[in-house]
Amino acid sequence: MTTAATHEAVGRRIEELDTPALFVDLDALEANASMMAGACRANGIDWRPHVKASKAPELAKRLLAAGAVGVTCAKVSEAEVMADGGITDILIANEVVGATKIARLVALAGRARLCVAADDTRNLEELSAAATAAGVNLDVLVDVDVGMGRCGVTPEEAPALAQRVLDLPGLSLRGLMGYEGHVQGIRDLEEKEARSEESASMLAEAKRLVEAVGIPVECTSGGGTGNYWIASTLGALTELQAGGGVLMDQTYGLYGVPGHRQALFLEIQVISAPRLGQAIGDAGWKASGRHTGLPAVWDSDLAQLDSSIEVTGLSAEHTHLRLAEGVTLEPGQRLLLVPHYSDSTVLLHRTMYAVRNGVVEDVWPISGAGMLQ
Amino acid sequence: MTTAATHEAVGRRIEELDTPALFVDLDALEANASMMAGACRANGIDWRPHVKASKAPELAKRLLAAGAVGVTCAKVSEAEVMADGGITDILIANEVVGATKIARLVALAGRARLCVAADDTRNLEELSAAATAAGVNLDVLVDVDVGMGRCGVTPEEAPALAQRVLDLPGLSLRGLMGYEGHVQGIRDLEEKEARSEESASMLAEAKRLVEAVGIPVECTSGGGTGNYWIASTLGALTELQAGGGVLMDQTYGLYGVPGHRQALFLEIQVISAPRLGQAIGDAGWKASGRHTGLPAVWDSDLAQLDSSIEVTGLSAEHTHLRLAEGVTLEPGQRLLLVPHYSDSTVLLHRTMYAVRNGVVEDVWPISGAGMLQ
Repeated sequence: MTTAATHEAVGRRIEELDTPALFVDLDALEANASMMAGACRANGIDWRPHVKASKAPELAKRLLAAGAVGVTCAKVSEAEVMADGGITDILIANEVVGATKIARLVALAGRARLCVAADDTRNLEELSAAATAAGVNLDVLVDVDVGMGRCGVTPEEAPALAQRVLDLPGLSLRGLMGYEGHVQGIRDLEEKEARSEESASMLAEAKRLVEAVGIPVECTSGGGTGNYWIASTLGALTELQAGGGVLMDQTYGLYGVPGHRQALFLEIQVISAPRLGQAIGDAGWKASGRHTGLPAVWDSDLAQLDSSIEVTGLSAEHTHLRLAEGVTLEPGQRLLLVPHYSDSTVLLHRTMYAVRNGVVEDVWPISGAGMLQ
Repeated sequence: MTTAATHEAVGRRIEELDTPALFVDLDALEANASMMAGACRANGIDWRPHVKASKAPELAKRLLAAGAVGVTCAKVSEAEVMADGGITDILIANEVVGATKIARLVALAGRARLCVAADDTRNLEELSAAATAAGVNLDVLVDVDVGMGRCGVTPEEAPALAQRVLDLPGLSLRGLMGYEGHVQGIRDLEEKEARSEESASMLAEAKRLVEAVGIPVECTSGGGTGNYWIASTLGALTELQAGGGVLMDQTYGLYGVPGHRQALFLEIQVISAPRLGQAIGDAGWKASGRHTGLPAVWDSDLAQLDSSIEVTGLSAEHTHLRLAEGVTLEPGQRLLLVPHYSDSTVLLHRTMYAVRNGVVEDVWPISGAGMLQ
């Protein structure tokens, strides 16, 4: 699937690429992946990184090479893209609802080991009917609400739903999912630890209740990049879903993710500089996700944010830059941006350059972008 | 280019489509296009709608059929997509900088009438050299800053730049561009009118100064959906760039755009409803642009927003819905959303269903999404 071998960009320096150009620094990516895989290994749990942020099967394969047991996806179409890219063990950490989407899910189960979350009896019956008709098996995680208030049943409701999975043909119970999405963005470390422990307790309680009715729980899956270094140590998870942190960004910095290196960058070009102390770059909020905050300029020599050039705003296709006294920029000059949030940035692009020491090693299609169904 | 004739969705009702499904109501689209074309006709100016919001060549062709003289694009790659789709008269209302991008621009000029904005002498020289080497002609609009403070020269600087265009081989001076981006979001109508008049005066002044040195100005181009009904009447423009308003959205409603019908919708499905008074839909901020605000639920029977179901938040892939007392929703039920901003929503999708009376007439690839270079 990769076009790397023949892609004209391979072997070029990033300064030669047309802009805006999204790229991942492979050394940093590998260091981050190694750190997340290591945290799982140290705690005796599996790493099943979510690929919602990166959306590129070629990047996902690097995570498998780093020790991941499979990947986590948000949607069926995202999982299809991963299967097309050669990934064979996929968790869809979400409810899959409606005849059309269940038909796609079942078709996909014919070519990958597939697991899906569920929180509704009728949904389970529809999944069972479709799987049985197609002669495939679907693994199921009963989705438990561990405090986020989104999808999922209460711990007390989990045993009945788990029993329903066992009773229905075409379905296998893999265990429980308890994703603590509400904990990810907490900036105070003590509060983050306390809320992580609460969620872990709820998941552990759901497991206890299910096992109390004689149903074994092989897998308990959860955790995000915003709390993985805590969640992986609490004993409630057998499988960690955190994955976005392999790219790193300003948001994860604010969330306190420790020790990760910035791996995702956006190379831009100045296209206009009509006023002293200002310049306009060629990437706006159509190239760098805007709703959490603004990108920042990166000084690659010092490997840190550049305080002499500030991003003061984004138009749809323009970067508004304020320059410190003495700094000038001219059309054609290049800058590196660190996106505010990788999750909302990568999906705006179609390819991601895989770069080492400033040279393009590979070009990865972001095939999962726009896969919303 | 269209896959409509053979697309399996053609002839289906929107309720049969997998979700989330982005669609445009053709009756509303045509009414809006007719209104914008009519405003231009009534004022004796050309309509060159910006396709940055819709990004679909097939939709752009509907605007040409409604009376547009060509289209406006933001980027070279977006213009390439429009040319691939059969559009032959394209303004890139932006500076095109750097050897790689200028090479793409010049290649495109071999297969479409192309006009580009410029605000820098060295950029003009690079455009000229590339055009001359390729044996093509580039039309140029001198970009004038009419108060936005982004790209563009002052009115006083316009004559020298216009003269430079005339002097350089391979370039033809088409006129001036003065886009009043800062006026679009003004909600107070009196202030919007006052600021529109200021911008129009600056553009008219630039034209007067250029003509005063003996250079004819054939075209003055500007205006956006947020002020087009004012800008088109002020006498400063010969060409209106406003185009996003053919889709309409909540943002343009807040901006006071008069008389347009909602044409862009997102069909979603409930995937979970574990708590009384709440439900979770299958579209988050990866399906409905988030940075300006939240989508709203549409009541298609009453053709107005539905006050009984409120979107209280968006996760990446989930809609958080609060239900009024007595309202219940179950997994599998469908809702229509009105995106907060069309510009930040369409680019998240890959196809747009063209729908009339609830039935799919055509399926339009959103080929311009992700075209950022």
